[in-house]
Amino acid sequence: MVAVNSLVLATVDPFAKVLIYLIIILVSVKLGAELFERMKQPAVLGELIAGVILGNLVLLNSGWNFFEPMRAAILADHAAISIDMLARLGIIILLFEVGLGSSMKDMRQVGVLSFSVATVGVIASFVLGYFVSTFFISEVPKQILEIAPNFNIHIIHMFIGAALCATSVGITARVFHDIGRSQMIEARIVLGAAVVDDVLGLIILALASAIVASAEAGTIPSFFGIAKLTLVAIGFLIGAMVIGSLLIPRVVGLGAKFRTQGLMLITALIICFGLASLAGLSGLAPIVGAFAAGLVLEEIHFKDFGSDVGIKDLISPISTFLVPIFFVQIGIQVRLESFLNPAVVGISVGLIVAAILGKQACGLFITRKGIDRLTVGIGMIPRGEVELIFAGVGKSLGVLDDETFSAIVVMVMVTTFLTPPLLKWAVDRNKKSEPQAKMQDS
Amino acid sequence: MVAVNSLVLATVDPFAKVLIYLIIILVSVKLGAELFERMKQPAVLGELIAGVILGNLVLLNSGWNFFEPMRAAILADHAAISIDMLARLGIIILLFEVGLGSSMKDMRQVGVLSFSVATVGVIASFVLGYFVSTFFISEVPKQILEIAPNFNIHIIHMFIGAALCATSVGITARVFHDIGRSQMIEARIVLGAAVVDDVLGLIILALASAIVASAEAGTIPSFFGIAKLTLVAIGFLIGAMVIGSLLIPRVVGLGAKFRTQGLMLITALIICFGLASLAGLSGLAPIVGAFAAGLVLEEIHFKDFGSDVGIKDLISPISTFLVPIFFVQIGIQVRLESFLNPAVVGISVGLIVAAILGKQACGLFITRKGIDRLTVGIGMIPRGEVELIFAGVGKSLGVLDDETFSAIVVMVMVTTFLTPPLLKWAVDRNKKSEPQAKMQDS
Repeated sequence: MVAVNSLVLATVDPFAKVLIYLIIILVSVKLGAELFERMKQPAVLGELIAGVILGNLVLLNSGWNFFEPMRAAILADHAAISIDMLARLGIIILLFEVGLGSSMKDMRQVGVLSFSVATVGVIASFVLGYFVSTFFISEVPKQILEIAPNFNIHIIHMFIGAALCATSVGITARVFHDIGRSQMIEARIVLGAAVVDDVLGLIILALASAIVASAEAGTIPSFFGIAKLTLVAIGFLIGAMVIGSLLIPRVVGLGAKFRTQGLMLITALIICFGLASLAGLSGLAPIVGAFAAGLVLEEIHFKDFGSDVGIKDLISPISTFLVPIFFVQIGIQVRLESFLNPAVVGISVGLIVAAILGKQACGLFITRKGIDRLTVGIGMIPRGEVELIFAGVGKSLGVLDDETFSAIVVMVMVTTFLTPPLLKWAVDRNKKSEPQAKMQDS
Repeated sequence: MVAVNSLVLATVDPFAKVLIYLIIILVSVKLGAELFERMKQPAVLGELIAGVILGNLVLLNSGWNFFEPMRAAILADHAAISIDMLARLGIIILLFEVGLGSSMKDMRQVGVLSFSVATVGVIASFVLGYFVSTFFISEVPKQILEIAPNFNIHIIHMFIGAALCATSVGITARVFHDIGRSQMIEARIVLGAAVVDDVLGLIILALASAIVASAEAGTIPSFFGIAKLTLVAIGFLIGAMVIGSLLIPRVVGLGAKFRTQGLMLITALIICFGLASLAGLSGLAPIVGAFAAGLVLEEIHFKDFGSDVGIKDLISPISTFLVPIFFVQIGIQVRLESFLNPAVVGISVGLIVAAILGKQACGLFITRKGIDRLTVGIGMIPRGEVELIFAGVGKSLGVLDDETFSAIVVMVMVTTFLTPPLLKWAVDRNKKSEPQAKMQDS
């Protein structure tokens, strides 16, 4: 194995290495996804675990360190840079797709109930995560102290709390769909709240990254600064939607006048990359812009192209190719050896408990009768792409060390893993106590 | 402009810069393609020229040097590395698509006539290109002499000759289609020959690169060594096809048993990347493998997936996104200032003449009556992706300096530009002298 590995590393040009990375990643991601689907588990869990295995094969003393360049703090290797960039494009495309899946009309229809459910869950998760962090993390990582000696440790606690906030709309939707209960009232509340969570999560990510960056630059973010950032983030989303709804039909209409092939897809990609880089230039995470682009774009905008395939069908092959690379790459960066340290096990367990309990607060303000609060609370448990993005951003900012990064990824895995059986139990329990359920049983 | 540009370069993280590159590239490529389509010219010409303009805006003393990192001999910038990698993925996907478009059955049906037309045209173009090169190029580039003081200049002449060989099947097919003559006998001969040309061109590229690499390593490639390489290249293609036809239905069948989403596309990509990196590991260009993968894969292999979209429909959005990046990137690297040097203008004109005359030899051995040799000869003129790949590989090996690289790209542009009007003229001229044409006119 050593021989093959060093041969490959030494003699292959960077692009051939990119191809080999891609083959290994695509094969293992699909094996992982398949295995988990057959065990009736979410496929994304299999993709993450495939990444964890690839990244940690080196622990077997096999000499297989092919993926080490992708785990280093600074990507020095052309192939690792390329895969990292494909993963980032993947996450942009994923958030664009999520945005395409939920229209602005849906957002308005979600209503006050979903909005309050989301807000309560986000606040409770943040507070619990913050306290778990104060309990386990007592010092600022060295690499941060080197660049910012006065870095305040509370910023780290805040970042970790923020990394627990958002329910993954993708996983939740998938679980309700798999148990055949997408239409129940609790499912609709949870899905609506999860969409709100995505938006809140992205705003919080924008805030958290900006605060870390300003603290690293030696300035303590003032209350005024934070308020300004919040306004920028919210303003960006609202602005993108308002201007978008006015401007985008024209941009798309202009694209439809072109005779060149593939213009429908290219127009959509330009809008997606355009809003993503605008978000980046405004100090937000590029995914915020990609999500906003998806929200604003509707299938109906593309009717002038007279195409019989929809825009989602055109984006789908690109996401099929690129999105798994993101999940695998996150998995690859998990260092299993971290868990030999009892403190890391402690913080992982702490974060998992905080993540689960935090969302049980969601039902607190539900006063309408006939809604099962526990089902809502459990439905809100799974964390996903937003948390993984938090973990990735935190690691690249230096605010999360390898151990905390690994703990957050494990928290995502465990919450995703626990939700399907818990939710099934909650729904079944509910069914027995309701007369309506009898009709369905008979 | 200076301010914006340095702001962007200085403060934006590499990924945001990748997004900005992508937006500029996608917008300008589609504007270029559209403009040329409206002028009834091949879209690919517009894409190349869009790239030339982007890369040479710096000449306007505008301070706009945003694309300089993509023109440097060594890509030092993360964003430039990423775009380069996307362009390479694009060319892999393009050759995979070309391969998917021509089945092994087609290859067998092309027949002896197309094969002889292709071979004669390739040999004549090679010989003419070689002599043009001896006329204009009298010394080995310094960067090569530094690593290989005994480098033989005839290897450069050979490389340039080889860079004229292959007719672009894509452009030829497009032109015949645009003038509504895809079914005429000359068109079928030319298209068949162009497919053979692709294969011959890829074999020649494999040979030429290997000879350059061995000369750079200080060894003079022996006749035996060249013969061995030829056998490896031909053996690879035949081997890939034979083993592929046996193995690939099983691999695809295995993929079809999976329940995970997107497996059809992922299976195809794994086969494409797999053969591409196998080709790379055997010392051939990765595109040879991608083309072989496309040849071997047939729509019918994927019937077990029970999907109502074909594999080409799934690959198409990915190529719509990535392929233009390749053409723009080639255009960006053209240095217009090279043409201030009369010698560069000379070699460009020489190569263009060699490229046109070389293919007029194609008709020499056509003895069957009723076939217009001039139409065949003109139909074979356009050069395209294989030559651009030659130019790119030659530049990265150091065997082509900026001037010769630019001359080859200009040769591709001019041949592509001249073919549509010339072919129309040849076909019309033919029509008048044939009674059959009258029936169509009435």
